[in-house]
Amino acid sequence: MIETVWTVQVKFGDCGPANIVLSRNYSRWMDAATEHYFEARGVPLSSQIKEQPGLLGVPLVESHLRFVQPATHPDTLRFHTQVEEWRAKVFVVSHRVMRGDMLVCEARETRAFCALDDDGRLRALPIPPSVRSHCE
Amino acid sequence: MIETVWTVQVKFGDCGPANIVLSRNYSRWMDAATEHYFEARGVPLSSQIKEQPGLLGVPLVESHLRFVQPATHPDTLRFHTQVEEWRAKVFVVSHRVMRGDMLVCEARETRAFCALDDDGRLRALPIPPSVRSHCE
Amino acid sequence: MIETVWTVQVKFGDCGPANIVLSRNYSRWMDAATEHYFEARGVPLSSQIKEQPGLLGVPLVESHLRFVQPATHPDTLRFHTQVEEWRAKVFVVSHRVMRGDMLVCEARETRAFCALDDDGRLRALPIPPSVRSHCE
Amino acid sequence: MIETVWTVQVKFGDCGPANIVLSRNYSRWMDAATEHYFEARGVPLSSQIKEQPGLLGVPLVESHLRFVQPATHPDTLRFHTQVEEWRAKVFVVSHRVMRGDMLVCEARETRAFCALDDDGRLRALPIPPSVRSHCE
Repeated sequence: MIETVWTVQVKFGDCGPANIVLSRNYSRWMDAATEHYFEARGVPLSSQIKEQPGLLGVPLVESHLRFVQPATHPDTLRFHTQVEEWRAKVFVVSHRVMRGDMLVCEARETRAFCALDDDGRLRALPIPPSVRSHCE
Repeated sequence: MIETVWTVQVKFGDCGPANIVLSRNYSRWMDAATEHYFEARGVPLSSQIKEQPGLLGVPLVESHLRFVQPATHPDTLRFHTQVEEWRAKVFVVSHRVMRGDMLVCEARETRAFCALDDDGRLRALPIPPSVRSHCE
Repeated sequence: MIETVWTVQVKFGDCGPANIVLSRNYSRWMDAATEHYFEARGVPLSSQIKEQPGLLGVPLVESHLRFVQPATHPDTLRFHTQVEEWRAKVFVVSHRVMRGDMLVCEARETRAFCALDDDGRLRALPIPPSVRSHCE
Repeated sequence: MIETVWTVQVKFGDCGPANIVLSRNYSRWMDAATEHYFEARGVPLSSQIKEQPGLLGVPLVESHLRFVQPATHPDTLRFHTQVEEWRAKVFVVSHRVMRGDMLVCEARETRAFCALDDDGRLRALPIPPSVRSHCE
């Protein structure tokens, strides 16, 4: 399986009063790491959105995070990202967040290429074949 | 089980380019809803932190979110929050996020009352008895 | 001049490691207070966006903030918001952020009702007359 | 004057419904660019905080931002950062945010090295001499 690595340096304001990184930042960074994954594979999300009529993005359907070690300022974190599974209309992304050789957090996200229905509901589109062929 | 309800009105900037609420905001709001839960039970987190030597907060150990419906601006969302389980050193919070009578998102979070060890690792403290007695 | 008051309770995660509210949250809250201003006047931004072809929102043209007192968790902050000036294509919003009778922050923002040009530049639209008539 | 350049790639979720970067992100990024400035000069903020008893960080006293061009996803933005002025207890940081050779935003921030008084008020400390000698 192809793995990409996206790196972030923890900043002062990524931490809360306990001086450890707030979980909302992992949510933001996993969006970024997923975006980086597609970009590194040559199928950037921004191009997909422009080219696929109606495509809105790859929002979360489900996510599971496990926090193993706290991260703090000014740690450098590496997000090791893979697509573990491609199904017809969803895909499963896994992230292993490392500080050096220490596991900080691991997560699994189910995402879909989505369009918006006329009634305001999200609808999962089939995975674009060009995305899948570049990522497998 | 005791349930509290915390309400938020979705703002323009809570949504991304697809005009649906970004998942990082649910992470932020679930922190707020958990905080509100303790406050509504008469054991606010800010007081606990002041009174318990070393206590840093109630960071996440694990979280699981399922996104059922997209929320958008200017929806009003109600977070129905319960503590489903008290164990010796962790507790399990569940959130059901509703827009009217429609389920938008449901989540289960494992959290701990944590202190920081000398080596920078988080250590779960026993659940403060006063917290537990006010919340059961 | 009409003044609206929007209230927020500072949460744990709104503060950084120094346990004082990070400035980025004031930026977010001033967006919310501005949105609340229009809603309270009966001309909500979400309706304006739906009704005005091309209208994208009321992004900042310029902002000036002065931080007078630090705010912390769990302070309650009240944003006193006015439109100080309506010009042809921009308007000036002022916010006074109070904790009790103590001034925490004051800000002045220049905003415009904006559309996006074909070349990706923002273009200020004339202030919608219905907005102005409800707010003066 | 010494200038540092800190680069960020705009991500999907940095933009709001209008698909332009929300101003709160500039606030966050200017914190990061300021932190990067000190790190690049060999006096990282995290070390200063460890070494200076009571030092909490370099919070904003005042800020002024002018938004010249909208930025969008996936723009690459470069923050050109200088300290324009060192006074006894505050310093003035300027940021010019560029996309290629286009000015996107310019800002001037007054910041102070701050400690917290016993009564919860921020107090500006004298600028640490080692910081000043590395940055001038």
